[in-house]
Amino acid sequence: MAINQNTSYINLKKSFTLRVADHRQRLPSSKIYGDGNAVPRILKFLKSIDLKEPLQKKFCFPPVKDNISQDIDHILETQSALAVDLGGTNLRVAIVSMKGEIVKKYTQLNPKTYEDRLALILKMCVEAASEAVNVNCRILGVGISTGGRVNPREGIVLHSTKLIQEWSSVDLRTPISDALHLPVWVDNDGNCAALAERKFGHGKGVENFVTLITGTGIGGGIVHQHELIHGSSFCAAELGHIVVSLDGPECLCGSQGCIEAYASGIALQREAKKLHDDDLLLVEGMSVKEEEIVSAAHLIQAAKLGNTKAESILRTAGTALGLGVVNILHTVNPSLVILSGVLANHYVNAVKDVINRQALSSVKTVDVVVSNLADPALLGAASLVLDYTTRRIY
Amino acid sequence: MAINQNTSYINLKKSFTLRVADHRQRLPSSKIYGDGNAVPRILKFLKSIDLKEPLQKKFCFPPVKDNISQDIDHILETQSALAVDLGGTNLRVAIVSMKGEIVKKYTQLNPKTYEDRLALILKMCVEAASEAVNVNCRILGVGISTGGRVNPREGIVLHSTKLIQEWSSVDLRTPISDALHLPVWVDNDGNCAALAERKFGHGKGVENFVTLITGTGIGGGIVHQHELIHGSSFCAAELGHIVVSLDGPECLCGSQGCIEAYASGIALQREAKKLHDDDLLLVEGMSVKEEEIVSAAHLIQAAKLGNTKAESILRTAGTALGLGVVNILHTVNPSLVILSGVLANHYVNAVKDVINRQALSSVKTVDVVVSNLADPALLGAASLVLDYTTRRIY
Repeated sequence: MAINQNTSYINLKKSFTLRVADHRQRLPSSKIYGDGNAVPRILKFLKSIDLKEPLQKKFCFPPVKDNISQDIDHILETQSALAVDLGGTNLRVAIVSMKGEIVKKYTQLNPKTYEDRLALILKMCVEAASEAVNVNCRILGVGISTGGRVNPREGIVLHSTKLIQEWSSVDLRTPISDALHLPVWVDNDGNCAALAERKFGHGKGVENFVTLITGTGIGGGIVHQHELIHGSSFCAAELGHIVVSLDGPECLCGSQGCIEAYASGIALQREAKKLHDDDLLLVEGMSVKEEEIVSAAHLIQAAKLGNTKAESILRTAGTALGLGVVNILHTVNPSLVILSGVLANHYVNAVKDVINRQALSSVKTVDVVVSNLADPALLGAASLVLDYTTRRIY
Repeated sequence: MAINQNTSYINLKKSFTLRVADHRQRLPSSKIYGDGNAVPRILKFLKSIDLKEPLQKKFCFPPVKDNISQDIDHILETQSALAVDLGGTNLRVAIVSMKGEIVKKYTQLNPKTYEDRLALILKMCVEAASEAVNVNCRILGVGISTGGRVNPREGIVLHSTKLIQEWSSVDLRTPISDALHLPVWVDNDGNCAALAERKFGHGKGVENFVTLITGTGIGGGIVHQHELIHGSSFCAAELGHIVVSLDGPECLCGSQGCIEAYASGIALQREAKKLHDDDLLLVEGMSVKEEEIVSAAHLIQAAKLGNTKAESILRTAGTALGLGVVNILHTVNPSLVILSGVLANHYVNAVKDVINRQALSSVKTVDVVVSNLADPALLGAASLVLDYTTRRIY
C-alpha cells in the first residue's frame, strides 16, 4: 500500500513535469492519465455485463501491436485522433484511427466570423469526443488543418487569404486545448496533406516528395529528408502562389499570375461564369438550371462535349499548373509529386506533359501520381496527433 | 626505436583504412601524410638559412588558431585549398586560404572539348600546387565548381547545358585525384556559391537562405537548416530554369520562359544584338566599335542614357528575375536572398520591388542583399575542401 502511494505521487509529479515541458514544445495540455470519459466508459462496460450470470474475470485481451501505454484503456480501445479541417467552404471534424480509418465524420459550413467558427469547432469536437467512447476510440489529441499560414510551434494561424475570413493572428491551440483538455496541434492544410501522404499514402518512406492540392484554392506541402519544410516564417510550400506569368489573372492573394489564379476551383469557376454570362458555356448535351451555381465542373463538362473555348481555358490552366510543378522540381527536386484534391485526376496528364516538354532532363525521372487518400487534410490533421503521441518525438 | 617503427606501421594502417572509407564517403584519395612537396619545402627552408652564422633551434612558431594537425607543416603553412571554377567562358584555378583569401589565381579560356579541358585543369592545378609551397600554403585538397548538374557524392558532372560543351557524364574526381594525389570534391557552381556565402559571406550562421547568381547564365543554391538542398537527382536549386511565363523567350535548356532566358547575361546580350541589328541600340553619348562584341553592358548603358526600348527590356528582365525570387520564397521561404554575379547590383532593386508587389505578406520579411564576396564560385569550391578537411564531417 505504501508503495502504491509512492507510485501515485511520482505519477503526479511526472504529469506536472510533462505539462511544464509541453509549453516549451508543442504539447500545450496533457491528460495522459484520462480523457474525461471514464464515467461513460464504466457505464458502457457495466451495461455490457449480463448480471444474471455468475461473473468471472476473463483474460482474453485482443493482441495489440505497437502499444506504448500500460493503461488498460489503450488495450481495449483504438488509439485515435480528433481531426479538424477548416476549408474555404466546410468545417469538418472526424475521429481518425491510428491506421488512418475515418471512423466518424461531421461536416458543417465554415462560419464567416471568428467567434462562430471557434464556437462551432468546440461544439463539434465535444460531440465527436463523446461519440469516440461509443466507437471504442481513445482520443489522444486534436489535430487541426486550416487554410492560411500557421505557426505550428505555437498553434497560431498567422494569416489567411480571403478564402477564410477573420482568420489572422488566431491562437487556436489555447482555447481548444483549454476546453477539451487535450493536446492540440495546428498546421496549414497543404502541410497536413503532405503529412497524410507520408503516413498513409504514396509518400510512405519517400525521402523527398511534394504534394499539391487543387481544390477551391491550391495548396501544397514539401517533404525534404522525411520532414516538412516550414521555412523561416512558416510560409514555405505556398505552392498555389507560384507565379507563372509576367501578368496573368488576378489572384485572391493580391498578386497576379499565380497558379491558383489559373487552375484552382475558384479560377475555373470564374472563367465558367464569364463564359456563361456571354452565353458561351453551354453546348449540346448540357444544361445549367436557373438556381444552380455555375462551377468548375460545368467548364470541364463543356470542354468534354466539344466547347473549344472551355477546352482552351482548361488547357491554359493545365499548362500553368504544370509550369508550377516544373518550378518546384527545379527548386527542391523531389522524386515524387502527389496531386490531390477534386481536380487532381483532371490535371495529372497535363502536368506530366508540361514536365516532359519543359523540365530539365535530370528532373524528368520524377513520378507524378494522384493521391489515393480519401481525405488528405483530415488524415494529415490526425497524423499531427498520431505521429507525436505514439513516437514521442516530433 | 621499436616504438617508432610500431607507430609508423599504425600510421600506414590508418592511411589505408581512410582510403577504403573514402570511397564510401566523399574522399576519393588522401595524402594526409604529405602533399608531395617535401623536397621544394626543404630546399626553401635550407635556402633561408644563413650558413655563415652559427645555427640554433628557435621556438617561435606563430600562434595558429583552430589548428587540428600535429604535423609541423600545418603550423608553418596556411591550410588552403585548390579551387577550380569551370564557367561558360573561363577556366580558373586558385589557391584559397582557410580564411577565404585568394592567394593566387590563374585564368584561361575554358576549352571546347573534354580532353583539352581536363588536360588544362590538370596542368593549372599542378602549377598552382607547386606555387603553393612558395606562398606558404598547404593544399588540403581540390574543390571544383562547375556549371551543370553534379553528383557531389561521386564527383561526377551528370549533365550540362550548351554553355559548357562535352560536359555530361564526366567523372572529374578520379582523374584529378589520381594525377594530383589529393582528395577532390565537385559541386555545381550555384551550390558552391551558396557554400561560399555560408562560410565567408552574408550567409554565415543563417539557417535558411538562397543565393542567386546572375552571370552568363543564372544559377543558384539553397541552404536549408544550414545544409545544401541537393534534391533526389542532384537537380535542386536549378533556379535559372524557374519559368515565369506561359510562353516567353527560348532558353538554352530547351524550355522557354525561364528566368535565365529573360535576365542572364546571354539573354540581355541577345536582346542588345537584336536592337543593334535594327539600329535601335545606340543613343547619344555611346558607341560600339566595329570589332567590339555587343553585350549586356551596352544594353544597360543605353537604358541609362534614355533608350526606352533598352529600358523596357531591362524592366521585363528585372520583373522576370523578381518573380523567380517570389517563387523561391513561396517554395522554401528563406530569411535571406543573396544576389551575386556581375548583374547583381543592377537587379537588386527590381527584385525588391517585385517582392513588395507580388509576394505573400508573410514572406516579405525576407532580406535581399548583394553578395560581398569577390568570387563566390572559387570561394565555394575552396570551402568544399576546407569544410571537410578541417571539420572532419561533411
